[in-house]
Amino acid sequence: MKTIVSIRRKALAASEEHAEELRGRFAESGTLVLNLISSPGSGKTTLLETTVGRLAERYRIAVIEGDVATERDADRIRALGVPAHQVLTGGACHLDARQIETALETADLLPADILFIENVGNLICPTTYDLGEDFKVVLLSVTEGDDKPLKYPAIFSRADVTVITKADLLPYVPFDLDAVLEHVKSLNPSGTIVIVSSTTGDGVDEWCDLLVERLGSKRES
Amino acid sequence: MKTIVSIRRKALAASEEHAEELRGRFAESGTLVLNLISSPGSGKTTLLETTVGRLAERYRIAVIEGDVATERDADRIRALGVPAHQVLTGGACHLDARQIETALETADLLPADILFIENVGNLICPTTYDLGEDFKVVLLSVTEGDDKPLKYPAIFSRADVTVITKADLLPYVPFDLDAVLEHVKSLNPSGTIVIVSSTTGDGVDEWCDLLVERLGSKRES
Repeated sequence: MKTIVSIRRKALAASEEHAEELRGRFAESGTLVLNLISSPGSGKTTLLETTVGRLAERYRIAVIEGDVATERDADRIRALGVPAHQVLTGGACHLDARQIETALETADLLPADILFIENVGNLICPTTYDLGEDFKVVLLSVTEGDDKPLKYPAIFSRADVTVITKADLLPYVPFDLDAVLEHVKSLNPSGTIVIVSSTTGDGVDEWCDLLVERLGSKRES
Repeated sequence: MKTIVSIRRKALAASEEHAEELRGRFAESGTLVLNLISSPGSGKTTLLETTVGRLAERYRIAVIEGDVATERDADRIRALGVPAHQVLTGGACHLDARQIETALETADLLPADILFIENVGNLICPTTYDLGEDFKVVLLSVTEGDDKPLKYPAIFSRADVTVITKADLLPYVPFDLDAVLEHVKSLNPSGTIVIVSSTTGDGVDEWCDLLVERLGSKRES
Protein backbone atom coordinates (compact mmCIF):
# COMPACT_ATOMS: atom_id res chain seq x y z
CA MET A 1 0.00 0.00 0.00
CA LYS A 2 3.02 2.28 0.55
CA THR A 3 3.74 2.26 -3.17
CA ILE A 4 0.20 3.35 -4.00
CA VAL A 5 0.38 6.15 -1.43
CA SER A 6 3.74 7.32 -2.77
CA ILE A 7 2.59 7.31 -6.40
CA ARG A 8 -0.62 9.09 -5.43
CA ARG A 9 1.41 11.75 -3.64
CA LYS A 10 3.54 12.34 -6.73
CA ALA A 11 0.43 12.56 -8.91
CA LEU A 12 -1.11 15.02 -6.45
CA ALA A 13 2.10 17.10 -6.39
CA ALA A 14 2.14 17.23 -10.21
CA SER A 15 -1.52 18.25 -10.15
CA GLU A 16 -0.71 21.02 -7.65
CA GLU A 17 1.95 22.41 -10.00
CA HIS A 18 -0.63 22.62 -12.77
CA ALA A 19 -3.02 24.32 -10.35
CA GLU A 20 -0.41 26.96 -9.51
CA GLU A 21 0.16 27.62 -13.22
CA LEU A 22 -3.57 28.04 -13.66
CA ARG A 23 -3.73 30.42 -10.71
CA GLY A 24 -1.04 32.57 -12.34
CA ARG A 25 -2.97 32.62 -15.58
CA PHE A 26 -6.21 33.60 -13.84
CA ALA A 27 -4.36 36.37 -11.95
CA GLU A 28 -3.09 37.74 -15.27
CA SER A 29 -6.53 37.77 -16.84
CA GLY A 30 -8.08 39.17 -13.63
CA THR A 31 -10.59 36.32 -13.59
CA LEU A 32 -12.34 35.32 -10.36
CA VAL A 33 -12.50 31.51 -10.36
CA LEU A 34 -14.88 29.43 -8.23
CA ASN A 35 -14.80 25.67 -7.77
CA LEU A 36 -18.36 24.52 -7.01
CA ILE A 37 -18.63 21.24 -5.12
CA SER A 38 -21.70 19.35 -3.85
CA SER A 39 -23.64 16.09 -3.91
CA PRO A 40 -25.39 15.25 -7.17
CA GLY A 41 -28.60 17.25 -7.43
CA SER A 42 -27.87 19.98 -4.91
CA GLY A 43 -28.63 22.62 -7.50
CA LYS A 44 -25.21 23.72 -8.78
CA THR A 45 -26.31 24.15 -12.41
CA THR A 46 -29.59 25.79 -11.41
CA LEU A 47 -27.72 28.30 -9.23
CA LEU A 48 -25.39 29.00 -12.16
CA GLU A 49 -28.37 29.59 -14.48
CA THR A 50 -29.82 32.05 -11.96
CA THR A 51 -26.44 33.75 -11.49
CA VAL A 52 -25.90 34.11 -15.24
CA GLY A 53 -29.38 35.66 -15.50
CA ARG A 54 -28.40 38.30 -12.96
CA LEU A 55 -24.78 39.05 -13.88
CA ALA A 56 -24.17 38.23 -17.55
CA GLU A 57 -25.15 41.70 -18.79
CA ARG A 58 -22.54 43.42 -16.65
CA TYR A 59 -19.81 40.77 -16.40
CA ARG A 60 -18.16 38.31 -18.79
CA ILE A 61 -19.03 34.90 -17.39
CA ALA A 62 -17.67 31.51 -18.47
CA VAL A 63 -18.39 28.03 -17.17
CA ILE A 64 -16.57 24.69 -17.12
CA GLU A 65 -18.87 21.76 -16.35
CA GLY A 66 -17.55 18.48 -14.98
CA ASP A 67 -19.65 15.34 -15.30
CA VAL A 68 -19.20 11.60 -15.57
CA ALA A 69 -21.51 11.55 -18.59
CA THR A 70 -23.78 13.77 -20.77
CA GLU A 71 -23.38 17.35 -22.07
CA ARG A 72 -26.63 18.39 -20.34
CA ASP A 73 -25.19 20.91 -17.93
CA ALA A 74 -23.03 22.72 -20.49
CA ASP A 75 -26.05 22.78 -22.85
CA ARG A 76 -28.15 24.44 -20.14
CA ILE A 77 -25.55 27.20 -19.68
CA ARG A 78 -24.93 27.68 -23.43
CA ALA A 79 -28.67 28.12 -23.91
CA LEU A 80 -28.26 31.36 -21.91
CA GLY A 81 -25.66 32.68 -24.34
CA VAL A 82 -22.68 32.15 -22.04
CA PRO A 83 -19.61 30.14 -23.11
CA ALA A 84 -19.50 26.73 -21.41
CA HIS A 85 -17.23 23.76 -21.89
CA GLN A 86 -18.19 20.26 -20.78
CA VAL A 87 -15.46 18.02 -19.35
CA LEU A 88 -16.55 14.37 -19.42
CA THR A 89 -14.57 12.38 -16.87
CA GLY A 90 -15.79 9.03 -18.19
CA GLY A 91 -16.14 7.57 -14.72
CA ALA A 92 -13.68 9.63 -12.70
CA CYS A 93 -15.14 11.17 -9.56
CA HIS A 94 -13.56 14.64 -9.64
CA LEU A 95 -11.95 17.23 -11.93
CA ASP A 96 -8.20 17.85 -11.90
CA ALA A 97 -6.07 20.82 -12.92
CA ARG A 98 -4.97 19.29 -16.21
CA GLN A 99 -8.57 18.95 -17.33
CA ILE A 100 -9.04 22.66 -16.65
CA GLU A 101 -5.92 23.47 -18.74
CA THR A 102 -7.27 21.37 -21.59
CA ALA A 103 -10.66 23.05 -21.32
CA LEU A 104 -9.01 26.48 -21.60
CA GLU A 105 -7.04 25.33 -24.66
CA THR A 106 -10.10 23.79 -26.31
CA ALA A 107 -12.78 26.39 -25.69
CA ASP A 108 -12.87 30.19 -25.85
CA LEU A 109 -13.51 30.87 -22.19
CA LEU A 110 -10.97 33.58 -21.34
CA PRO A 111 -10.85 36.50 -20.95
CA ALA A 112 -13.68 36.39 -18.46
CA ASP A 113 -14.54 38.25 -15.27
CA ILE A 114 -15.87 35.20 -13.48
CA LEU A 115 -15.17 31.56 -14.34
CA PHE A 116 -17.34 29.00 -12.60
CA ILE A 117 -16.02 25.46 -12.47
CA GLU A 118 -18.86 23.09 -11.63
CA ASN A 119 -17.19 19.96 -10.30
CA VAL A 120 -18.52 16.39 -10.63
CA GLY A 121 -21.42 15.74 -8.22
CA ASN A 122 -19.52 14.30 -5.26
CA LEU A 123 -19.09 15.65 -1.74
CA ILE A 124 -15.85 13.77 -1.05
CA CYS A 125 -13.31 13.28 -3.85
CA PRO A 126 -13.18 16.80 -5.38
CA THR A 127 -12.26 18.25 -1.97
CA THR A 128 -8.52 17.59 -2.22
CA TYR A 129 -7.96 18.70 -5.84
CA ASP A 130 -6.85 22.26 -6.41
CA LEU A 131 -8.04 23.60 -9.78
CA GLY A 132 -6.29 26.98 -9.47
CA GLU A 133 -9.51 28.52 -8.13
CA ASP A 134 -9.74 31.55 -5.85
CA PHE A 135 -11.97 29.58 -3.51
CA LYS A 136 -14.20 26.56 -3.22
CA VAL A 137 -17.95 26.83 -2.79
CA VAL A 138 -19.85 23.94 -1.23
CA LEU A 139 -23.59 23.66 -1.86
CA LEU A 140 -25.93 21.81 0.48
CA SER A 141 -29.61 21.48 -0.41
CA VAL A 142 -32.05 21.38 2.49
CA THR A 143 -33.49 18.12 1.13
CA GLU A 144 -30.17 16.34 1.80
CA GLY A 145 -30.55 16.61 5.56
CA ASP A 146 -28.98 18.65 8.33
CA ASP A 147 -26.37 16.03 9.29
CA LYS A 148 -24.22 16.55 6.20
CA PRO A 149 -21.63 19.12 7.44
CA LEU A 150 -20.58 16.83 10.31
CA LYS A 151 -20.68 13.73 8.09
CA TYR A 152 -18.56 15.33 5.34
CA PRO A 153 -16.39 17.71 7.37
CA ALA A 154 -13.48 18.08 4.92
CA ILE A 155 -15.32 20.04 2.25
CA PHE A 156 -17.25 22.19 4.74
CA SER A 157 -13.92 23.09 6.42
CA ARG A 158 -12.16 23.93 3.15
CA ALA A 159 -14.86 25.79 1.23
CA ASP A 160 -14.71 29.56 1.76
CA VAL A 161 -18.40 29.80 0.99
CA THR A 162 -21.26 27.45 1.92
CA VAL A 163 -24.47 27.91 -0.04
CA ILE A 164 -27.60 26.35 1.46
CA THR A 165 -29.86 25.73 -1.56
CA LYS A 166 -33.54 24.87 -2.18
CA ALA A 167 -34.53 26.97 0.84
CA ASP A 168 -38.09 27.11 -0.59
CA LEU A 169 -38.45 23.43 0.36
CA LEU A 170 -37.72 24.06 4.07
CA PRO A 171 -41.43 23.76 5.03
CA TYR A 172 -41.61 20.25 3.58
CA VAL A 173 -38.48 18.60 4.98
CA PRO A 174 -36.97 18.01 8.41
CA PHE A 175 -33.92 20.31 8.36
CA ASP A 176 -32.63 22.13 11.42
CA LEU A 177 -31.18 25.26 9.80
CA ASP A 178 -29.81 26.67 13.06
CA ALA A 179 -27.92 23.43 13.74
CA VAL A 180 -26.45 23.46 10.23
CA LEU A 181 -25.30 27.08 10.58
CA GLU A 182 -23.68 26.21 13.90
CA HIS A 183 -21.95 23.10 12.51
CA VAL A 184 -20.62 24.94 9.46
CA LYS A 185 -19.35 27.80 11.64
CA SER A 186 -17.61 25.35 13.97
CA LEU A 187 -15.91 23.62 11.01
CA ASN A 188 -15.05 26.88 9.27
CA PRO A 189 -15.11 29.93 11.56
CA SER A 190 -13.97 32.38 8.86
CA GLY A 191 -16.29 31.08 6.13
CA THR A 192 -19.34 32.76 4.66
CA ILE A 193 -22.79 31.16 4.52
CA VAL A 194 -25.49 32.16 2.06
CA ILE A 195 -29.03 30.74 2.02
CA VAL A 196 -30.70 30.75 -1.40
CA SER A 197 -33.65 29.50 -3.35
CA SER A 198 -33.16 29.59 -7.10
CA THR A 199 -36.93 28.96 -7.40
CA THR A 200 -38.13 32.02 -5.45
CA GLY A 201 -34.97 34.10 -5.93
CA ASP A 202 -34.47 34.51 -2.17
CA GLY A 203 -30.81 35.05 -1.28
CA VAL A 204 -29.69 35.32 -4.90
CA ASP A 205 -28.88 39.04 -4.54
CA GLU A 206 -26.69 38.30 -1.54
CA TRP A 207 -24.89 35.53 -3.50
CA CYS A 208 -24.32 37.79 -6.52
CA ASP A 209 -23.16 40.69 -4.31
CA LEU A 210 -20.61 38.36 -2.75
CA LEU A 211 -19.27 37.41 -6.20
CA VAL A 212 -18.99 41.03 -7.33
CA GLU A 213 -17.29 42.01 -4.06
CA ARG A 214 -14.77 39.14 -4.35
CA LEU A 215 -14.06 40.07 -7.98
CA GLY A 216 -13.39 43.67 -6.86
CA SER A 217 -11.07 42.53 -4.06
CA LYS A 218 -9.12 40.29 -6.42
CA ARG A 219 -8.56 43.10 -8.90
CA GLU A 220 -7.53 45.57 -6.20
CA SER A 221 -5.01 43.20 -4.64
CA MET B 1 0.20 6.51 -15.04
CA LYS B 2 0.54 2.87 -16.19
CA THR B 3 2.06 1.92 -12.84
CA ILE B 4 -0.86 3.45 -10.95
CA VAL B 5 -3.32 1.62 -13.17
CA SER B 6 -1.49 -1.68 -12.69
CA ILE B 7 -1.28 -1.30 -8.89
CA ARG B 8 -4.95 -0.31 -8.76
CA ARG B 9 -5.86 -3.41 -10.77
CA LYS B 10 -3.96 -5.64 -8.36
CA ALA B 11 -5.65 -3.93 -5.38
CA LEU B 12 -9.03 -4.40 -7.05
CA ALA B 13 -8.29 -8.08 -7.77
CA ALA B 14 -7.31 -8.64 -4.10
CA SER B 15 -10.51 -6.89 -3.05
CA GLU B 16 -12.54 -9.17 -5.36
CA GLU B 17 -11.04 -12.25 -3.70
CA HIS B 18 -12.17 -10.94 -0.33
CA ALA B 19 -15.62 -10.28 -1.77
CA GLU B 20 -15.87 -13.87 -3.01
CA GLU B 21 -14.92 -15.16 0.44
CA LEU B 22 -17.62 -12.98 1.95
CA ARG B 23 -20.16 -14.24 -0.57
CA GLY B 24 -19.35 -17.82 0.50
CA ARG B 25 -19.79 -16.91 4.12
CA PHE B 26 -23.15 -15.22 3.46
CA ALA B 27 -24.30 -18.26 1.45
CA GLU B 28 -23.47 -20.51 4.42
CA SER B 29 -25.39 -18.34 6.88
CA GLY B 30 -28.28 -17.95 4.40
CA THR B 31 -28.05 -14.18 4.72
CA LEU B 32 -29.44 -11.90 2.02
CA VAL B 33 -26.96 -9.02 1.63
CA LEU B 34 -27.73 -5.68 0.02
CA ASN B 35 -25.25 -2.94 -0.84
CA LEU B 36 -27.10 0.41 -0.73
CA ILE B 37 -25.57 3.18 -2.83
CA SER B 38 -26.71 6.77 -3.39
CA SER B 39 -25.81 10.44 -3.17
CA PRO B 40 -25.53 11.88 0.34
CA GLY B 41 -28.99 12.57 1.71
CA SER B 42 -31.06 10.37 -0.61
CA GLY B 43 -32.66 8.69 2.37
CA LYS B 44 -30.72 5.44 2.78
CA THR B 45 -30.76 5.47 6.59
CA THR B 46 -34.38 6.62 6.72
CA LEU B 47 -35.42 3.77 4.40
CA LEU B 48 -33.51 1.34 6.64
CA GLU B 49 -35.29 2.69 9.72
CA THR B 50 -38.65 2.17 8.00
CA THR B 51 -37.64 -1.30 6.82
CA VAL B 52 -36.48 -2.35 10.28
CA GLY B 53 -39.83 -1.15 11.65
CA ARG B 54 -41.66 -3.45 9.23
CA LEU B 55 -39.46 -6.55 9.21
CA ALA B 56 -37.48 -6.78 12.46
CA GLU B 57 -40.16 -8.76 14.30
CA ARG B 58 -40.15 -11.55 11.72
CA TYR B 59 -36.55 -11.45 10.45
CA ARG B 60 -33.12 -11.06 12.01
CA ILE B 61 -31.76 -7.83 10.52
CA ALA B 62 -28.23 -6.43 10.80
CA VAL B 63 -26.71 -3.26 9.37
CA ILE B 64 -23.22 -2.08 8.45
CA GLU B 65 -23.00 1.70 8.04
CA GLY B 66 -20.25 3.35 5.98
CA ASP B 67 -19.45 7.00 6.53
CA VAL B 68 -16.53 9.38 6.24
CA ALA B 69 -17.25 10.64 9.76
CA THR B 70 -19.69 10.33 12.71
CA GLU B 71 -21.49 7.32 14.25
CA ARG B 72 -24.87 8.98 13.63
CA ASP B 73 -26.27 6.45 11.19
CA ALA B 74 -25.35 3.37 13.25
CA ASP B 75 -26.79 5.12 16.34
CA ARG B 76 -30.10 5.64 14.51
CA ILE B 77 -30.32 1.92 13.66
CA ARG B 78 -29.20 0.74 17.12
CA ALA B 79 -31.92 2.89 18.65
CA LEU B 80 -34.39 0.50 16.99
CA GLY B 81 -32.85 -2.50 18.74
CA VAL B 82 -31.10 -3.88 15.67
CA PRO B 83 -27.34 -4.62 15.62
CA ALA B 84 -25.43 -2.03 13.58
CA HIS B 85 -21.72 -1.49 13.07
CA GLN B 86 -20.29 1.83 11.91
CA VAL B 87 -17.31 1.76 9.53
CA LEU B 88 -15.56 5.14 9.48
CA THR B 89 -13.55 5.53 6.29
CA GLY B 90 -11.74 8.64 7.53
CA GLY B 91 -11.94 10.32 4.15
CA ALA B 92 -12.23 7.37 1.77
CA CYS B 93 -15.13 7.62 -0.65
CA HIS B 94 -16.41 4.00 -0.63
CA LEU B 95 -16.42 0.77 1.40
CA ASP B 96 -14.31 -2.22 0.40
CA ALA B 97 -14.61 -5.94 1.13
CA ARG B 98 -11.91 -5.95 3.79
CA GLN B 99 -13.80 -3.38 5.83
CA ILE B 100 -16.84 -5.68 5.71
CA GLU B 101 -14.71 -8.60 6.93
CA THR B 102 -13.40 -6.49 9.80
CA ALA B 103 -16.94 -5.38 10.65
CA LEU B 104 -18.07 -9.03 10.84
CA GLU B 105 -15.10 -9.86 13.11
CA THR B 106 -15.68 -6.84 15.34
CA ALA B 107 -19.45 -6.84 15.77
CA ASP B 108 -22.04 -9.56 16.38
CA LEU B 109 -23.95 -9.20 13.12
CA LEU B 110 -24.28 -12.78 11.91
CA PRO B 111 -26.29 -14.97 11.83
CA ALA B 112 -28.84 -12.67 10.23
CA ASP B 113 -31.58 -13.09 7.64
CA ILE B 114 -30.90 -9.76 5.96
CA LEU B 115 -27.70 -7.70 6.18
CA PHE B 116 -27.92 -4.16 4.83
CA ILE B 117 -24.64 -2.48 3.96
CA GLU B 118 -25.18 1.27 3.66
CA ASN B 119 -22.28 2.55 1.60
CA VAL B 120 -20.68 6.00 1.87
CA GLY B 121 -22.87 8.70 0.29
CA ASN B 122 -21.41 8.80 -3.22
CA LEU B 123 -23.01 7.92 -6.54
CA ILE B 124 -19.71 7.16 -8.30
CA CYS B 125 -16.89 5.48 -6.37
CA PRO B 126 -18.77 2.66 -4.57
CA THR B 127 -20.07 1.36 -7.91
CA THR B 128 -17.00 -0.74 -8.77
CA TYR B 129 -16.39 -2.31 -5.34
CA ASP B 130 -17.91 -5.73 -4.71
CA LEU B 131 -18.70 -6.26 -1.02
CA GLY B 132 -19.89 -9.85 -1.42
CA GLU B 133 -23.49 -8.64 -1.64
CA ASP B 134 -26.34 -10.43 -3.43
CA PHE B 135 -27.16 -7.23 -5.25
CA LYS B 136 -26.69 -3.49 -5.26
CA VAL B 137 -29.56 -1.09 -4.62
CA VAL B 138 -29.30 2.47 -5.90
CA LEU B 139 -31.49 5.15 -4.30
CA LEU B 140 -32.46 8.35 -6.09
CA SER B 141 -34.50 10.98 -4.27
CA VAL B 142 -36.89 13.04 -6.38
CA THR B 143 -35.28 16.22 -5.04
CA GLU B 144 -31.99 15.34 -6.79
CA GLY B 145 -33.47 15.83 -10.25
CA ASP B 146 -34.54 13.59 -13.10
CA ASP B 147 -31.24 13.82 -15.02
CA LYS B 148 -29.28 11.63 -12.60
CA PRO B 149 -29.62 8.15 -14.21
CA LEU B 150 -28.15 9.42 -17.49
CA LYS B 151 -25.49 11.49 -15.70
CA TYR B 152 -24.37 8.58 -13.47
CA PRO B 153 -25.08 5.60 -15.75
CA ALA B 154 -22.68 3.09 -14.17
CA ILE B 155 -24.53 2.62 -10.89
CA PHE B 156 -27.98 2.62 -12.51
CA SER B 157 -26.78 -0.09 -14.93
CA ARG B 158 -25.28 -2.25 -12.19
CA ALA B 159 -27.86 -1.98 -9.41
CA ASP B 160 -30.45 -4.75 -9.55
CA VAL B 161 -32.92 -2.51 -7.77
CA THR B 162 -33.52 1.23 -8.14
CA VAL B 163 -35.48 2.87 -5.32
CA ILE B 164 -36.95 6.30 -6.07
CA THR B 165 -37.23 7.95 -2.64
CA LYS B 166 -38.97 11.00 -1.12
CA ALA B 167 -41.93 10.49 -3.49
CA ASP B 168 -44.03 12.65 -1.13
CA LEU B 169 -42.03 15.67 -2.35
CA LEU B 170 -43.00 15.13 -6.03
CA PRO B 171 -45.59 17.98 -5.95
CA TYR B 172 -42.92 20.48 -4.91
CA VAL B 173 -40.05 19.70 -7.30
CA PRO B 174 -39.57 19.49 -11.05
CA PHE B 175 -39.03 15.74 -11.58
CA ASP B 176 -40.24 13.89 -14.68
CA LEU B 177 -40.93 10.47 -13.16
CA ASP B 178 -41.85 8.87 -16.51
CA ALA B 179 -38.55 10.00 -18.04
CA VAL B 180 -36.62 8.59 -15.08
CA LEU B 181 -38.38 5.23 -15.32
CA GLU B 182 -37.61 5.13 -19.04
CA HIS B 183 -33.93 6.05 -18.52
CA VAL B 184 -33.44 3.47 -15.77
CA LYS B 185 -35.12 0.78 -17.90
CA SER B 186 -32.92 1.63 -20.86
CA LEU B 187 -29.77 1.39 -18.71
CA ASN B 188 -30.92 -1.75 -16.91
CA PRO B 189 -33.68 -3.66 -18.74
CA SER B 190 -33.82 -6.53 -16.21
CA GLY B 191 -33.76 -4.30 -13.12
CA THR B 192 -36.58 -3.60 -10.69
CA ILE B 193 -37.79 -0.12 -9.78
CA VAL B 194 -39.64 0.71 -6.57
CA ILE B 195 -41.06 4.13 -5.72
CA VAL B 196 -41.27 4.90 -2.00
CA SER B 197 -41.89 7.59 0.55
CA SER B 198 -40.59 6.78 4.00
CA THR B 199 -42.63 9.75 5.26
CA THR B 200 -46.06 8.56 4.05
CA GLY B 201 -45.18 4.85 3.87
CA ASP B 202 -46.16 4.64 0.19
CA GLY B 203 -44.28 1.87 -1.60
CA VAL B 204 -42.71 0.51 1.58
CA ASP B 205 -44.80 -2.70 1.41
CA GLU B 206 -43.62 -3.31 -2.13
CA TRP B 207 -39.99 -2.76 -1.07
CA CYS B 208 -40.31 -5.11 1.92
CA ASP B 209 -42.10 -7.76 -0.18
CA LEU B 210 -39.20 -7.63 -2.64
CA LEU B 211 -36.70 -8.25 0.18
CA VAL B 212 -38.66 -11.19 1.58
CA GLU B 213 -39.07 -12.68 -1.90
CA ARG B 214 -35.33 -12.35 -2.63
CA LEU B 215 -34.48 -13.90 0.74
CA GLY B 216 -36.77 -16.84 -0.11
CA SER B 217 -35.20 -17.28 -3.55
CA LYS B 218 -31.70 -17.24 -2.08
CA ARG B 219 -32.56 -19.94 0.45
CA GLU B 220 -34.28 -22.13 -2.14
CA SER B 221 -31.36 -21.98 -4.56
